[in-house]
Amino acid sequence: MLKRIHHVGIVVRNLDEAYRFYRDALGLHVHKTAEVRDQGVKAALLRVGHSEIELLEPIDPRGTVARFLEKRGEGMHHICFETDDVERELAAARAKGIPLIDEKPRRGLAGRICFLHPKGTAGVLVEYAQPVD
Amino acid sequence: MLKRIHHVGIVVRNLDEAYRFYRDALGLHVHKTAEVRDQGVKAALLRVGHSEIELLEPIDPRGTVARFLEKRGEGMHHICFETDDVERELAAARAKGIPLIDEKPRRGLAGRICFLHPKGTAGVLVEYAQPVD
Repeated sequence: MLKRIHHVGIVVRNLDEAYRFYRDALGLHVHKTAEVRDQGVKAALLRVGHSEIELLEPIDPRGTVARFLEKRGEGMHHICFETDDVERELAAARAKGIPLIDEKPRRGLAGRICFLHPKGTAGVLVEYAQPVD
Repeated sequence: MLKRIHHVGIVVRNLDEAYRFYRDALGLHVHKTAEVRDQGVKAALLRVGHSEIELLEPIDPRGTVARFLEKRGEGMHHICFETDDVERELAAARAKGIPLIDEKPRRGLAGRICFLHPKGTAGVLVEYAQPVD
């Protein structure tokens, strides 16, 4: 059972420019920033209710986020659902024949995560996350 | 102050096909469906935590959602933030110089709503919604 929308990931050209809307106009608080080397991004997390907006600025031109930006421009990139058992969600998706990007959970910014392939989700890059303490 | 992510809007080619993932694999409950004539869509709302997934199937080939589908394919279309005062949010966005799609709130599926232009939001179609009873 999915608990909530954990975050919506948005690809931006530049975090400081994006803050002008997401922080200054929407009034959301940036509670964490981090470099995620293996995804080639600088990320900023902003809270809204019990969910987050995850702004992603590419820092590696060979990374998937840089390629997304080049091909599609700025905009929504993925949606992440929180679960208390990422292994179970992954097994359920596999059993339903949903194509997977990650064959098993791995460590990400939001905890133990995995991605499903947009081919099986009406074009949406879907992430599951099980937060860890 | 924004209260939460009210919903994420996803454009799909066909609702029944999209249910195979969002209802049957994710296990979300479809609690409402509606035709929104002035937006040229059939919509289905599925709850996840205190937010919703809004699946949008175009029914009018001249509508903006049909054109989005034709140009970009299926995928995430907009994000809607819940507020208790949509007039105030709109005034604040205008004061910050954010380009607007709606100059004043109007009635939509989620209550009193308005859309901001993606030019001012790092490429994201952003909606504000003030639910009404």
